[in-house]
Amino acid sequence: MFAKNEKRPKIWPQYVVIVGCGRLGSLLAGLLSNAGSSVVVIDCKERAFDLLTPEFSGFRIVGDAVEMEVLEAAKTGKADCLLATTEDDNVNLMVAQVARTVFEVPKVLARVFDPRREAVYREFGIETISPTKLTGEAFLAAVREQREDASCG
Amino acid sequence: MFAKNEKRPKIWPQYVVIVGCGRLGSLLAGLLSNAGSSVVVIDCKERAFDLLTPEFSGFRIVGDAVEMEVLEAAKTGKADCLLATTEDDNVNLMVAQVARTVFEVPKVLARVFDPRREAVYREFGIETISPTKLTGEAFLAAVREQREDASCG
Repeated sequence: MFAKNEKRPKIWPQYVVIVGCGRLGSLLAGLLSNAGSSVVVIDCKERAFDLLTPEFSGFRIVGDAVEMEVLEAAKTGKADCLLATTEDDNVNLMVAQVARTVFEVPKVLARVFDPRREAVYREFGIETISPTKLTGEAFLAAVREQREDASCG
Repeated sequence: MFAKNEKRPKIWPQYVVIVGCGRLGSLLAGLLSNAGSSVVVIDCKERAFDLLTPEFSGFRIVGDAVEMEVLEAAKTGKADCLLATTEDDNVNLMVAQVARTVFEVPKVLARVFDPRREAVYREFGIETISPTKLTGEAFLAAVREQREDASCG
């Protein structure tokens, strides 16, 4: 299976586990599915899957990803990438840590709202993405742009 | 006053009203204060201001920015920029709309979590910034990077 794809540039991960099917998780699930990745999405609420778009062609698992059996059911050990995207920084940290240390997933990314927590994540070899920081930067860029364009002199 | 600054490149807004003093609002308040803008921050909970950093040198107003008197107290009519950064898309839309139409603030930016709402904002001449979209893009960039670096052939 893998040999077949050798000539194709390996841009997207082959097998991705996404924890949390909110706005972010469902968006990523659709985009990665569409890009050709095999995707499994985990959420503790079944109705969260309503957010999945028709692009999504992967599997859904209803369960709490903090529980080992749920990550096992998602075949996390075979994943080359896990994305922790729930609304809860603690859940994301816990799941990401288990994915790294127990399932040895090579690439683990976690959403972290509180930028002060990023150091904790990094200690465990987990990459973090902070919406707060990204949004702040986007606001500042838009505000600066305005003043450069405007002629208020 | 303004003439004095004519030679200085007008990169940052002079007077900014920020609605919502959560992680994003407090971050922006500190950065803009530090950049030399006059900043007023509005939040309905006084303890929200605990998030402000020592960089912040502006004014705080406790009140619901959906109420006209609160925006008046913040001298919104004199602002060249209003940033609606609460956790509630509806509040951000409402405040941004009033800032544009009643107070004629030239630059109004609103955080909008639900990307499907962006069209509504745009109709009112309000720029939107979507954390969901930005974070999704950052996740995808990080995931792609991994596959380009890795040698899994």
